[in-house]
Amino acid sequence: MRNILIIGLGKSSTYLIKYLLDKIDIEQLHITIGDLNIENAKKLVRQHERVNIIELDVFNDVSRKNAIQQADIVISMLPARFHIEVAKDCVRLNKNMVTASYISPEMQDLDAQVKQKGLVFMNEIGVDPGIDHMSAMQVIDRIRNNGGKMILFESFTGGLVAPECDNNLWNYKFTWNPRNVVIAGQGGAAKFLQEGTYKYIPYNRLFRRTEFIDIENYGRFEIYANRDSLKYQSVYGLNDIKTLYRGTIRRVGFSRAWNIFVALGMTDDSYTIEDSENMSYRDFINAFLPYSPTDSVELKLRHQLKIDQDDIMWDKLVELDIFNSNKRVELKNATPAQILQKILMDSWTLHENDRDMIVMYHKFGYELEGKNYQIDSNMVVLGENQTYTAMAKTVGLPVAIAALAILNGKIKTPGVQLPITKEVYTPILTELETYGIQFKEHNVPYFGYNPLNI
Amino acid sequence: MRNILIIGLGKSSTYLIKYLLDKIDIEQLHITIGDLNIENAKKLVRQHERVNIIELDVFNDVSRKNAIQQADIVISMLPARFHIEVAKDCVRLNKNMVTASYISPEMQDLDAQVKQKGLVFMNEIGVDPGIDHMSAMQVIDRIRNNGGKMILFESFTGGLVAPECDNNLWNYKFTWNPRNVVIAGQGGAAKFLQEGTYKYIPYNRLFRRTEFIDIENYGRFEIYANRDSLKYQSVYGLNDIKTLYRGTIRRVGFSRAWNIFVALGMTDDSYTIEDSENMSYRDFINAFLPYSPTDSVELKLRHQLKIDQDDIMWDKLVELDIFNSNKRVELKNATPAQILQKILMDSWTLHENDRDMIVMYHKFGYELEGKNYQIDSNMVVLGENQTYTAMAKTVGLPVAIAALAILNGKIKTPGVQLPITKEVYTPILTELETYGIQFKEHNVPYFGYNPLNI
Repeated sequence: MRNILIIGLGKSSTYLIKYLLDKIDIEQLHITIGDLNIENAKKLVRQHERVNIIELDVFNDVSRKNAIQQADIVISMLPARFHIEVAKDCVRLNKNMVTASYISPEMQDLDAQVKQKGLVFMNEIGVDPGIDHMSAMQVIDRIRNNGGKMILFESFTGGLVAPECDNNLWNYKFTWNPRNVVIAGQGGAAKFLQEGTYKYIPYNRLFRRTEFIDIENYGRFEIYANRDSLKYQSVYGLNDIKTLYRGTIRRVGFSRAWNIFVALGMTDDSYTIEDSENMSYRDFINAFLPYSPTDSVELKLRHQLKIDQDDIMWDKLVELDIFNSNKRVELKNATPAQILQKILMDSWTLHENDRDMIVMYHKFGYELEGKNYQIDSNMVVLGENQTYTAMAKTVGLPVAIAALAILNGKIKTPGVQLPITKEVYTPILTELETYGIQFKEHNVPYFGYNPLNI
Repeated sequence: MRNILIIGLGKSSTYLIKYLLDKIDIEQLHITIGDLNIENAKKLVRQHERVNIIELDVFNDVSRKNAIQQADIVISMLPARFHIEVAKDCVRLNKNMVTASYISPEMQDLDAQVKQKGLVFMNEIGVDPGIDHMSAMQVIDRIRNNGGKMILFESFTGGLVAPECDNNLWNYKFTWNPRNVVIAGQGGAAKFLQEGTYKYIPYNRLFRRTEFIDIENYGRFEIYANRDSLKYQSVYGLNDIKTLYRGTIRRVGFSRAWNIFVALGMTDDSYTIEDSENMSYRDFINAFLPYSPTDSVELKLRHQLKIDQDDIMWDKLVELDIFNSNKRVELKNATPAQILQKILMDSWTLHENDRDMIVMYHKFGYELEGKNYQIDSNMVVLGENQTYTAMAKTVGLPVAIAALAILNGKIKTPGVQLPITKEVYTPILTELETYGIQFKEHNVPYFGYNPLNI
């Protein structure tokens, strides 16, 4: 029996399915795909005698258990909050499991049972989280094995549009959940470590405290800080590290313009706007500006945020058509964030021929025999089209490779886990390279934030 | 029987007690004061044969009910969240009740029972809420009775320091709960109406969207918007009004400097700072600034917020001694807001001879026979010393006067209510005038926000 059950097909499943179908004969796999929407699944999957597409409602206990009972390993591509029922069944029915999602507290609670039964529950094995863990730990382990002591770790990821399709002033299009982009950074201060000092950036300053990175052939990018850079500090064994910083990658200039929306309050998701349905885009902007019977929305905005006449930020706003008094919001009881999302989707939705791009960048600073060194490592992956996206590739391939490695007993250490051990990252990163997912490493002078030890 | 029970003695009870003691003989009152801390109450209250001070734990059902049973009217000066148990006893035992607090949903739920029993539960009868309701409704009713139609209502209140004691650069000292000052405006956008348009100001812009008022003999003040200016729209019968705005009064320049704390994230109360206990004030500021081995905290702050060399804001920061590297925070697991509060209390705590000041300002715009008019009305009350404060006077006197008026059957319409009817505000405002709490009215040209009807 080599039965793989995949629950939930989404945008990120195309490469996952393709990889497993390509291996179906050589690996003698039986693949069952369970989704609420069978028609959608049928479009994605070519017919094969050992592929079975079933209608599966994950909230129907009987059909969920039946499907899981017949599998040897279960891949859940459901939204993260739906994994737990599948996970509990997998424990009861002695099945291995793979997800690309963050380990929830409920999932973590299963660890003892999972270990007792000798099962592998691999999580956080997409791109971010996923490839970031594996590629970082591979270098960190190497540095340590050579006797180095980690003093700096910075890690950045971004989902962007491929350079050939990068044709708007923001150098950005939605390649993933637009809502997450609009509300990114909200809910508390960003927290990180710089040279042994805890640093905090409030939401209203987040997009003004960016830093730059350069990648050969791809030019310059900017980074804004993630909410909690310290999340993996102990998981990576970096408890004594001086600088620990994680961030999100955008093209240079995005954050400065995005901060206009933050400053005006247009990204707020905590209250609804009166009569949002009948507002024009112009009315929406005007709701965040003082009333005037004479002054234009444009001048009020320029004055409030002190935007100069010749500032490129202004052209970015105009490009979004936000001053249009004829376009209606047409969303009932909408929050500012929901309205802004709609306005942005008019401009930032991928066109038919657009391709996406995933960029990842790590900095590893370490001390060896009294000297400081730094390794910078980056990965750029381009999508092929709107079905085979870079996002689907970097999320789906690690999931698929991990599932097969677990099925074949190559990954066997039991427990609820994320991919930070050599047993896991070595085979997966090696195979990912054959698909063009690879990191370029550069030895660079140690930068840190205090290179002269002042 | 003319027994008044006062539960809970605080800073705002001095005038309340004094008023009732002054009337004790002429009104033949019996006054019982119940507090957890008898010693404190004894200090405030002079001995009298018909004054009884009892130890009262409001959470002890038996002693609470016993005390209420023997009263004809109960004044609760407890923190707002503790009123409800007292209120339920008052319903059961057929007692009238007075509080200076906002009507909670639980209190409102008692309305039908209170009406059925013919009781009066008067709430929101301090200064704000309280005097603001009464003084506003008196003018609004007069305008309507004369055939006018309300088109604009703005109302502002501030607790400040008296001009003779106003001797710091912020023109501010804590005359009330410091915590409420530090976290003021947080939790969502400020919402109001201007010329028929809903306007929203996010927290990060709140202190940059101020407006000015001028009061004869007291000079200029500034206003920042309250969270919800629309709260009393229907209560005041202002459903068709075009402009509705409520705000808090500070001296000019306070808000612009306060915004430094907002922008840096130092007012955040949602997370704790690592190792806050051992931080210096300087470390605290530095936690919100980028790391540098060489640049000073001062220059980093000036650069981040673009504060010019000669900007008076800077002197305000220096005055607070926030760059001191020797003063320690000494608060364990403290939020930024808690630490900031401590720093401010070093500088903004009232000195022994300091006196406080309450300022209130209303604008009433109305249309009469096709023309627009405006009445501006303001009240300034000065404290006598740190016991007999303006805050205690403007909170305690309306409470005391209302209690006596209910006892004497002058206020008798039953129900859970706030002081917005003529029956209530006329006698109370009239009597407040004899204590120097009075409004000065000025007929001014209609200002509105669109005076020329463009």
